[in-house]
Amino acid sequence: MTYCIGMLSEPGLVMLADTRTHAGVDNISTFRKLHVWETPGERVLGLTTAGNLAISQSVRGLLREGLRFAPEDLAVMGPDAPTEPDTAFTLETVPTVFQAALLVGRAIRNVYHTDGPSLGAQDGFQVSMILGGQIRGRPLRLFQLYAAGNFVEATRDTPYFQIGELKYGKPILDRLMHPGIRLEEAVKLGLLSVDSTLKSNLSVGMPLDLLVYRRDDFRVTLRRRIHEDDAYYHRMHDAWSRHLAEAYAGLPDPDWWDAPPGPGDRPA
Amino acid sequence: MTYCIGMLSEPGLVMLADTRTHAGVDNISTFRKLHVWETPGERVLGLTTAGNLAISQSVRGLLREGLRFAPEDLAVMGPDAPTEPDTAFTLETVPTVFQAALLVGRAIRNVYHTDGPSLGAQDGFQVSMILGGQIRGRPLRLFQLYAAGNFVEATRDTPYFQIGELKYGKPILDRLMHPGIRLEEAVKLGLLSVDSTLKSNLSVGMPLDLLVYRRDDFRVTLRRRIHEDDAYYHRMHDAWSRHLAEAYAGLPDPDWWDAPPGPGDRPA
Repeated sequence: MTYCIGMLSEPGLVMLADTRTHAGVDNISTFRKLHVWETPGERVLGLTTAGNLAISQSVRGLLREGLRFAPEDLAVMGPDAPTEPDTAFTLETVPTVFQAALLVGRAIRNVYHTDGPSLGAQDGFQVSMILGGQIRGRPLRLFQLYAAGNFVEATRDTPYFQIGELKYGKPILDRLMHPGIRLEEAVKLGLLSVDSTLKSNLSVGMPLDLLVYRRDDFRVTLRRRIHEDDAYYHRMHDAWSRHLAEAYAGLPDPDWWDAPPGPGDRPA
Repeated sequence: MTYCIGMLSEPGLVMLADTRTHAGVDNISTFRKLHVWETPGERVLGLTTAGNLAISQSVRGLLREGLRFAPEDLAVMGPDAPTEPDTAFTLETVPTVFQAALLVGRAIRNVYHTDGPSLGAQDGFQVSMILGGQIRGRPLRLFQLYAAGNFVEATRDTPYFQIGELKYGKPILDRLMHPGIRLEEAVKLGLLSVDSTLKSNLSVGMPLDLLVYRRDDFRVTLRRRIHEDDAYYHRMHDAWSRHLAEAYAGLPDPDWWDAPPGPGDRPA
C-alpha cells in the first residue's frame, strides 16, 4: 500500500510520500512515489502516486515521452489552449498547472485504454495521484487525480489531499490542518500523520520522501529523503508519544462513573 | 457503517459501540449495536455487531430463540461439552464464555446457510462481532467473530478488538492501550478512539453505548448511553483537542530545515 499527502497553504506546498510497495506481505520493495520536476526560476511540480505500481510507472513513462492533449482537454482550456493542438507536452513544457493536471489525467486515460480491460477482469484499474506546484505567472495549485483521469482541486476549506492508506492519518490532519499553516508546521503535521499510519499499518513504510515549495519561489525549497534513523523524526516521534500519553493521563475520569448502572435492556 | 471496540484488561472489560446505521448517506437510522445479557451474580456477556444489519438481527433472533450446537462445536469443547447434545442454548444458559462464542458463531453460520447465497450474489455476507464477558467459575474472555463464524481471542499482546470503521481510531489505541489499563482509563481511551473516528467519518455517529464490567463481579459495573450533549464527553473532547494542539505547537521544527535542498532526481 501507500500513503501520500499533499498540503496547500498560504506560504506554499508540502508533499510527503512513503516508499513501500508490496504484492502480499512477503514481497515488499522500496519505490519512489514522489516525483519532482523543477526548472529553477520557472516551475516546480510534484506528483505522488498510489495504487497499482505498473499503472503509475506507465503514466510516468507517457509523461516523460510527452503526449498530446485530446480534443476534449483542449475544449476546457479556453484562451490558454495551445495554439498548435498537435504539440506533445511533458510536465517540463506544459504551460499551466491546470494543463499539467489535464496532461496527467490524459496519461491515466491512455494507460486505461491499454491496460484497463485486462486489469478490469482482475484487480480493477486502481490508481490515484496528487499533483501540486506552480509555474511562473500562474498561481500555486494542488489537485487530486482519480483512476478515471478526472481531478479535484484543493481549496481553503479542504487544503489537503491524501491518497492510499489514508484513514489512520486523517484524524490528526482534520484536527490541525488549516490553510494558513506555516511550511515548517505543515511538515511536522504531515510527519505526525505518517507516524500514526506507520504505527498501525505494516504496508506503509520508511523512508519518506518530502518536497517543500514556498509560493512564488519557482525553485524547490526543501527536498529530503527521511530515513528510519533520521534524528529529527525520532525526536519528534518520541516527543509526540510522550505528549499524547501525558495529555491522556491528564483527562478527567468520567463524572458519571459512580452513577448506578443504566437500565438493562432486555436480553436481546 | 459502525465502530465498536472491546477492551480487555486486568481489571475488567470495556465495550463501546456507536449506533448509526445507513443505507447510503440519505438513509440513516439509530440502532443499538451493543447488547448485554446479565444474570446478576452469575454472568455478564456483551455482544457488539458490525456489518449487514439484517444479518446481525437474524443472529440475535436465533440466539434469543435458542439453538443447538453442531457436532463439530461439541467436538472442540472437550470435558465442558453439554451432556445432552440436543439441548438448545441461549446466551443466558450457555455454560461458558468459550461456548458462548461457539454459539454466536453457530448462529452466524446458520444465518449464512439461509441468507448467504442471495447475499453472496449482491453485497456479500458481511458481519463481524465482538463478544466479551464472564460466567461464574470461569475466566473473563473477549472474542472477535468473523463472517465465517470462527473467532479469535484477545490476549495480553493484543488486548483489544475493533470492528467496523476501525482505521481512524486505531492509532490512538495502538499508542495507549495496555493490558493493565484501569477501567476508567479504558473508557477514556475508547471515547478518544471514537472521537477521532467521528471527526473523520460521517457514517459513525452518536449516541454511543458503553458497557463496563469489573472482573469477578458477575454484574454490570456501568452501562450508559452517551448522547451528543453529554457534558463529560464534551469536556473530554475539548480538553483533548486543546492538548493535541499544544503538544503539536510544542514540537521542534525540523533541524534539517535550513539545509540546502537535496539532490533533485532527474525529471521522471
